[in-house]
Amino acid sequence: MSLIDLFIEAGNLKKLPRTGWLLRGVSNPESIADHSYRVALITLFLADELRAKGVEIDVERALKIAVLHDLAEARVTDIPLTAQYYLDKGKAEKKAAMELFIKTPNPREYFRLWREYEEGLSLEGRLVKFADKLEMLVQALEYEKAGFKDLDEFWSALDSLRESEFYEHFREIVEELAGLRKQNR
Amino acid sequence: MSLIDLFIEAGNLKKLPRTGWLLRGVSNPESIADHSYRVALITLFLADELRAKGVEIDVERALKIAVLHDLAEARVTDIPLTAQYYLDKGKAEKKAAMELFIKTPNPREYFRLWREYEEGLSLEGRLVKFADKLEMLVQALEYEKAGFKDLDEFWSALDSLRESEFYEHFREIVEELAGLRKQNR
Amino acid sequence: MSLIDLFIEAGNLKKLPRTGWLLRGVSNPESIADHSYRVALITLFLADELRAKGVEIDVERALKIAVLHDLAEARVTDIPLTAQYYLDKGKAEKKAAMELFIKTPNPREYFRLWREYEEGLSLEGRLVKFADKLEMLVQALEYEKAGFKDLDEFWSALDSLRESEFYEHFREIVEELAGLRKQNR
Amino acid sequence: MSLIDLFIEAGNLKKLPRTGWLLRGVSNPESIADHSYRVALITLFLADELRAKGVEIDVERALKIAVLHDLAEARVTDIPLTAQYYLDKGKAEKKAAMELFIKTPNPREYFRLWREYEEGLSLEGRLVKFADKLEMLVQALEYEKAGFKDLDEFWSALDSLRESEFYEHFREIVEELAGLRKQNR
Amino acid sequence: MSLIDLFIEAGNLKKLPRTGWLLRGVSNPESIADHSYRVALITLFLADELRAKGVEIDVERALKIAVLHDLAEARVTDIPLTAQYYLDKGKAEKKAAMELFIKTPNPREYFRLWREYEEGLSLEGRLVKFADKLEMLVQALEYEKAGFKDLDEFWSALDSLRESEFYEHFREIVEELAGLRKQNR
Amino acid sequence: MSLIDLFIEAGNLKKLPRTGWLLRGVSNPESIADHSYRVALITLFLADELRAKGVEIDVERALKIAVLHDLAEARVTDIPLTAQYYLDKGKAEKKAAMELFIKTPNPREYFRLWREYEEGLSLEGRLVKFADKLEMLVQALEYEKAGFKDLDEFWSALDSLRESEFYEHFREIVEELAGLRKQNR
Repeated sequence: MSLIDLFIEAGNLKKLPRTGWLLRGVSNPESIADHSYRVALITLFLADELRAKGVEIDVERALKIAVLHDLAEARVTDIPLTAQYYLDKGKAEKKAAMELFIKTPNPREYFRLWREYEEGLSLEGRLVKFADKLEMLVQALEYEKAGFKDLDEFWSALDSLRESEFYEHFREIVEELAGLRKQNR
Repeated sequence: MSLIDLFIEAGNLKKLPRTGWLLRGVSNPESIADHSYRVALITLFLADELRAKGVEIDVERALKIAVLHDLAEARVTDIPLTAQYYLDKGKAEKKAAMELFIKTPNPREYFRLWREYEEGLSLEGRLVKFADKLEMLVQALEYEKAGFKDLDEFWSALDSLRESEFYEHFREIVEELAGLRKQNR
Repeated sequence: MSLIDLFIEAGNLKKLPRTGWLLRGVSNPESIADHSYRVALITLFLADELRAKGVEIDVERALKIAVLHDLAEARVTDIPLTAQYYLDKGKAEKKAAMELFIKTPNPREYFRLWREYEEGLSLEGRLVKFADKLEMLVQALEYEKAGFKDLDEFWSALDSLRESEFYEHFREIVEELAGLRKQNR
Repeated sequence: MSLIDLFIEAGNLKKLPRTGWLLRGVSNPESIADHSYRVALITLFLADELRAKGVEIDVERALKIAVLHDLAEARVTDIPLTAQYYLDKGKAEKKAAMELFIKTPNPREYFRLWREYEEGLSLEGRLVKFADKLEMLVQALEYEKAGFKDLDEFWSALDSLRESEFYEHFREIVEELAGLRKQNR
Repeated sequence: MSLIDLFIEAGNLKKLPRTGWLLRGVSNPESIADHSYRVALITLFLADELRAKGVEIDVERALKIAVLHDLAEARVTDIPLTAQYYLDKGKAEKKAAMELFIKTPNPREYFRLWREYEEGLSLEGRLVKFADKLEMLVQALEYEKAGFKDLDEFWSALDSLRESEFYEHFREIVEELAGLRKQNR
Repeated sequence: MSLIDLFIEAGNLKKLPRTGWLLRGVSNPESIADHSYRVALITLFLADELRAKGVEIDVERALKIAVLHDLAEARVTDIPLTAQYYLDKGKAEKKAAMELFIKTPNPREYFRLWREYEEGLSLEGRLVKFADKLEMLVQALEYEKAGFKDLDEFWSALDSLRESEFYEHFREIVEELAGLRKQNR
């Protein structure tokens, strides 16, 4: 049981491309770690803002979930939608997460955090899911600004942001993003 | 049902990296299509040589299997060993292959070829499996010659080549490869 | 004389970019092997379909030609149009092919196959030429869908597909491709 | 004043390479975001372990610092050592950080966190500095394992880890890393 | 004091990307050396043309300035506009240039040439500045032709070309470039 | 006849990789323009030093030759040794150079300069050839330092440097390079 092993395995997230972009012709797309980084950044600001608005939220918890939410992909890799139809990604990541966390001093606690994201078990877990989608759309916007096309289907995530429990708090952010996209086309 | 759709989907094999190399630090590794190409080339020469030696082999069949053997990865992607522990890659590729071949005029026939590789059902299918492993080792050799390290575990495939039914015919090739590797270290 | 040498040399096809795309600003274009792979795949389906329609065609032969047709580029590289004006690419590849095949047990036979493609000496050779052009256009379509521009001149190959002896058999495929392109603009 | 702007700017961290590796011949090195991600991950586990050992530490604070510590590089980029000799990187990042945080609802608070890292003003800030160095060495180890050389000078950071106030707590981790490096050479 | 050291350091210019493009989503942009090369090429033709038109210009001097004008970036790297707001790039490059040239037999002379560019002290220095801007715009044109967008702000450099003392001599070149850009949009 | 056309064509040199490195597994090698840039830089210092030593040399001429010496590759590309055996590279580049220079106001003069390099017709032309080889070895050294192997055959160029008429003047530089290489192995 060694944290160094875990840190080294997490290095896979730097090497592995986000396959969704890759399959649509973005030839050097962001890594999983690139994505995870900005999810954590977004989570930080959204969680703080929720707290400022009086929502009871555990910011530490939210940040931990953000940092851990894609860790299982260090083993399972970024399975794209075309593959999820054939593979039980959720089950695989669950098992991988469990086994990865065994390397840590508190397997149960970290696995619980991971499940809060995956299964939407807590406000914090659901916030990271919201941040995860928001992050993807910011990236889609950037790629489209740079000239890449064929990314339309990613934008269906806008709907799920609008239907989220957090939309009332972050309507402005979501709609600004939607507006920037329109401009861009 | 359209062949153009199939040809476009096969384009994914050009975009997707072979993850085994990627995870060991080869930063711009070959694509799945790169690999599949050389498997077909190797199959061509080995099959012809077997025929020349009097082995009854259907070369056309062998070539078709070689060209089709990784096609399911156009949807499933190249699932690395670290992930196969958590995912039923075989089952996923089987289903994906079946659904891909529905786009062709002869789904049954092509799926049968695919299964001959996957399940070792025919001499031709097993020859492509032999070529698949040989190809991987030639690539490992090239990467090591270029300076990459950390590829030791790939070389365990040498054993399976040596235990193969084809070893008696291609001993020289296998051992020359093993020799080149030794030199290289 | 060794097949391993040939297999290693064929590895060059994975490293060498298709220069036509490169010169038009596609920064990480497909490799020659990437292209050759899909040419073989396309050949497989077209040859089978021709046979199903009653055309007398040797599918094994067609597949071998597809796999071998760009092998000389492992030495000569992918000479772009701008260079072909100054270099006798055909002559160079012919000599290189001849010398490469000397490493195989049947130099004459393989060289004959190569010439069937290069010089259009057989139905199978001409079919691979048709597949070669079709493959290039599918790739152009994909790059354009992803956002790349400046690929207009590649589409002149549509005319040669339409004038081909195979057009009557694959009109639907060619016109579907042409249609997808129009949509894309 | 908009968070979306900040999120978009943070996207620069995905595009910008860590120049230290680049200048030593690692041709596709990690991005700044890649690095920042693992710093946050390491911080999470180290902070939790410190707390478990009875050290009074604000884990939320530590995580926030980790996520924010390189944000100024979204404007200033990763100035390598060769340049720091000529440029006042610290002053530049300080001003950039200040101006970036103006886009947030709490500029003062976030800037304070940033300074805690930069100036070592708090235990949490110093822990992230420890994690930052540790992360770099794990990466150096990975590059060396993959075959890259010329990374010796990075390893002088081992000394600063050993002299750190946190060494007593994480001696095992540091020495395991040092051991892996020795093995690797 | 060794020229080999200087030649090796100049190798950094091959490794370092031009960050202006990178930050706008050109994922594999030209290197600083790529840029410097074409600046030298452009300088060559413009300087010769000026001389042919009777302008008194020292072509050798102009060429040397072109080759040396970005050499300080081998240490300072390509500081983008977003960073120049926070860093004194000019001062840094001046000091770096001075120290780099100490490795040469004639530090004073080369530093003088460098300053002629940087401070516009001579006709030759100003010509290279003109060539430097022209080169950037030719590159912007190429990237836009290839499909990249988001490069509008680079084109403000057209104005400075038009206001330059050299505009009267190279009006045709500048306006042809401007025309090509319009066509391209 | 337009210089802008020439400048745009020269952009190909930025896109085209030096194939010698590519074929030995350097996956993102320098461009032709990268190489040409440092050849010009080396030429500058060597030419000045020769002049300082009393050798009668036209430095402007030498610099022009350095900048122009690989320009024909904008059309012909970097034909590697494996291909030169089959292609008349010299003849191709000669014709391409001639036709490229037609776009300039002084085709004859520039073509003459190009020939001085290619055919060694002048001291300046031969100096650039010396610089060209020296540059390649500095690059080989850098790649080897970074971890790449399989570059031995490039070092045979050391002999030709030692046999050159310029060796007496630059013995120190050549031998320092040779020494660094030994250290590196």
